[in-house]
Amino acid sequence: MALELFTRVFDVEKIRLSGTEEFIVRGGRDLFEKLPQALEGIRQIGVIGWGSQGPAQALNLRESLQGSSITVKVGLREGSGSMDEARAAGFTEENGTLGEMYSVISESDLVLLLISDAAQAENHERIFDALKPGATLGLSHGFLLGYLKTVGAAFPPNVNVIAVCPKGMGPSVRRLYEQGREVNGAGINASIAIQQDINDKATDLALGWSIALGAPFTFQTTLDKEYLSDIYGERGILLGAVHGIVESLYRRYVSQGLSEEDAFDHSCESITGPISRCISHHGILRLYEVLDDDGKAEFRKAYCAAYKPAMEILLEIYDDVANGNEIRSVYAAHKRGFPIGEIDGTRMWEVGKAVRARRVEEEIPINAFTAGVYCATMIAQVDILADKGHTYSEICNESVIECVDSLNPYMHFKGVSHMIDNCSTTARLGARKWAPRFDYNLTQQAYVAIDTGEALDDSVFDRFLAHEVHDSLATCAELRPSVDISLAE
Amino acid sequence: MALELFTRVFDVEKIRLSGTEEFIVRGGRDLFEKLPQALEGIRQIGVIGWGSQGPAQALNLRESLQGSSITVKVGLREGSGSMDEARAAGFTEENGTLGEMYSVISESDLVLLLISDAAQAENHERIFDALKPGATLGLSHGFLLGYLKTVGAAFPPNVNVIAVCPKGMGPSVRRLYEQGREVNGAGINASIAIQQDINDKATDLALGWSIALGAPFTFQTTLDKEYLSDIYGERGILLGAVHGIVESLYRRYVSQGLSEEDAFDHSCESITGPISRCISHHGILRLYEVLDDDGKAEFRKAYCAAYKPAMEILLEIYDDVANGNEIRSVYAAHKRGFPIGEIDGTRMWEVGKAVRARRVEEEIPINAFTAGVYCATMIAQVDILADKGHTYSEICNESVIECVDSLNPYMHFKGVSHMIDNCSTTARLGARKWAPRFDYNLTQQAYVAIDTGEALDDSVFDRFLAHEVHDSLATCAELRPSVDISLAE
Repeated sequence: MALELFTRVFDVEKIRLSGTEEFIVRGGRDLFEKLPQALEGIRQIGVIGWGSQGPAQALNLRESLQGSSITVKVGLREGSGSMDEARAAGFTEENGTLGEMYSVISESDLVLLLISDAAQAENHERIFDALKPGATLGLSHGFLLGYLKTVGAAFPPNVNVIAVCPKGMGPSVRRLYEQGREVNGAGINASIAIQQDINDKATDLALGWSIALGAPFTFQTTLDKEYLSDIYGERGILLGAVHGIVESLYRRYVSQGLSEEDAFDHSCESITGPISRCISHHGILRLYEVLDDDGKAEFRKAYCAAYKPAMEILLEIYDDVANGNEIRSVYAAHKRGFPIGEIDGTRMWEVGKAVRARRVEEEIPINAFTAGVYCATMIAQVDILADKGHTYSEICNESVIECVDSLNPYMHFKGVSHMIDNCSTTARLGARKWAPRFDYNLTQQAYVAIDTGEALDDSVFDRFLAHEVHDSLATCAELRPSVDISLAE
Repeated sequence: MALELFTRVFDVEKIRLSGTEEFIVRGGRDLFEKLPQALEGIRQIGVIGWGSQGPAQALNLRESLQGSSITVKVGLREGSGSMDEARAAGFTEENGTLGEMYSVISESDLVLLLISDAAQAENHERIFDALKPGATLGLSHGFLLGYLKTVGAAFPPNVNVIAVCPKGMGPSVRRLYEQGREVNGAGINASIAIQQDINDKATDLALGWSIALGAPFTFQTTLDKEYLSDIYGERGILLGAVHGIVESLYRRYVSQGLSEEDAFDHSCESITGPISRCISHHGILRLYEVLDDDGKAEFRKAYCAAYKPAMEILLEIYDDVANGNEIRSVYAAHKRGFPIGEIDGTRMWEVGKAVRARRVEEEIPINAFTAGVYCATMIAQVDILADKGHTYSEICNESVIECVDSLNPYMHFKGVSHMIDNCSTTARLGARKWAPRFDYNLTQQAYVAIDTGEALDDSVFDRFLAHEVHDSLATCAELRPSVDISLAE
């Protein structure tokens, strides 16, 4: 059942994804002229925080709203170490676009709360108190709603509460927006959620914000579904699972006699390079189809062995997000304040650095076994989201598009720590928590089953070949230009 | 501040552990004649469940109460697959000592609820309804209290609620009790907790139950502190941490050029064999003292590098137990019903089987590096429990004695899966969840720090040498005979 989507400003399209209808709105720079109308009544947008999303959204909004009367002002806590970075980006006290966060909150008509999830949780009472009556509170993630539920609290009733959730980390939101100057519509897709609408303006505010960020297409979800799929997805194939998979495969290939460099090439490089590119441009199924017969058999074997062990961990993650455990854990970690350790000081990632340094992109192999394990985990993630009632827009974006278009390219560029640590703290903690679980489960179950010649369940592979996600991904791909994110130091 | 301990039947001793006073009661077969007095008013003890603790407790109680008028009757759910095992152990319908669980609950004066934690949680309402008014509900673990708190429920007010919590898994509770026929006082220590005392008999009921199980000494705690320390401890050094440690060390030693067999000898065999025996007989400090100068330096280096990464995970575990996350996770796993996979099908544990088969016990080395990592994790666990206000009886039993006297010997005997899978489902799930976290944190932080020659924090080692746990362990050791658990097929 599709959520309704009423806008006075933009064109709504109805699409069919895996048999159900959804309403979406396309973006593009040609729509920026409509932003003042969508954001009617907003004189100042306060962007609170300068972490992953903060800089990207502040910069994109300022650029998209150039020439309008709307001010984008950054708000940071007193003494924040990010003040200088904000100033270097042109947000300064002198020109009235930088201030103390609670002042900026109290004077803004649209407040984008982009501080860390834990800081939102910790300071929510003071933040709510600072909001102007009738203002709009904007989130880029439903974590705060999840937290409020764990403590039995609620949003203040006299404000709009909306969310625009880019399906990529902040640096990608910025980078692809910049590429949009050349290719209209390049950008990171976003979901919107209307949690409270006190003046019938919430939907157009959300759509305006999303289009101003550069989202090539915007789909609708609820704030509940958003945080469930987001926190789950980043613990799964987006971050945690992909990390655990490459650790387990690297170790396996070394133990099978490959050199360390080749093992890295056939595990990590293969996923973050050609496998991701193939999925991004041609979908998941193509990855199987391009393999020769031996490769197809290897892919199938790996897929069948990995699907259930991956599913087991993913089900646990979904439950732990839904019952509030992951939210409580993130908040507890914040209270402990223990510094988060490095991931990639180990031998494997030292090898990875050397491999990247001498990389010839075209020579990176698509390893069929690696592809099978990766796709099995991806599809297991998709299957759980579908089973839990998420829309296919959300499923495709949280399980496939964000991986291959935003996160994996960063991992390809600089390694796993770099990628993970450019996401939110919630994502960093989750990836560190769940990666080893995927690693152990695959190693103890999937690889053992293969090595002992255990009979594998072929039916999961039949479902893969006929999976409805393939058509949905093709439809999503038509809605935006095909642009590879361009990364450089 | 010591909990008071009032008994009309047994002798209470006051001991000092790390500067604070605690009251304990010694056990021994010479006290079995006092059991009818301690269990006054109990005509039937219902032992509900036949998992890890069930068989051990039913058999020990029946043997200890031989000649008294008290019946020990086993209660299992209709159609339980364990019926035959209970019958084979002499609990039969014919002799009136086996029945359907709710019937046994409703007719017993003391009900020992030894079904799985999740089953307790799921069926608690029906169980509470079945209890006779004035009966005593006995637990061997505080999980149910933790669960009731997560759902805002409570024990029925018209019954006693007591706990006797053996500090070892069921098979050890049975095995050492049997050895107690030769060496009076051999057995597994237990804690007692008095949660509700409606007739002023609860303490003597608990002490009688504990002594009948063969506990060489019984100390007192609260049901809250019990489940916190128990669920935390088994996720830590008792099961999860020791598994993660040996996986990480085995991999490290292989990568450093040791043969697979030698790597297993220097990691797993070393811990479960000579390291555990040394700690059991002579305490933790002796392990360091028996090393030569090179070994001492190696131990110190490993200790200093491992302490903080282990502490990080242990703090997270403690928080996740205290805020109910672990309890919700166990219950969610029960609801999902996904089968729990094997741990030791991997190459390492195949090697382990071969190593055990040709083992010469006296030739197993004490590897200094392994000992340093293991002790650092153990002491980190101790430090957190002390910081959270647990008594040193509980700390020593949950962090040291249960390891070296109950669990590690089983692991030495049959491997890690066997050990873990002979504990409760709560423990199995927790070990599988946290082992990989310890593995990754040690590998990513401790071993990287050592290999890159990072300056280590020597102050943690100074604290180790002067640690108050050493005296407390010596005091605990005096309270019971030194008996190595004897294991055979």
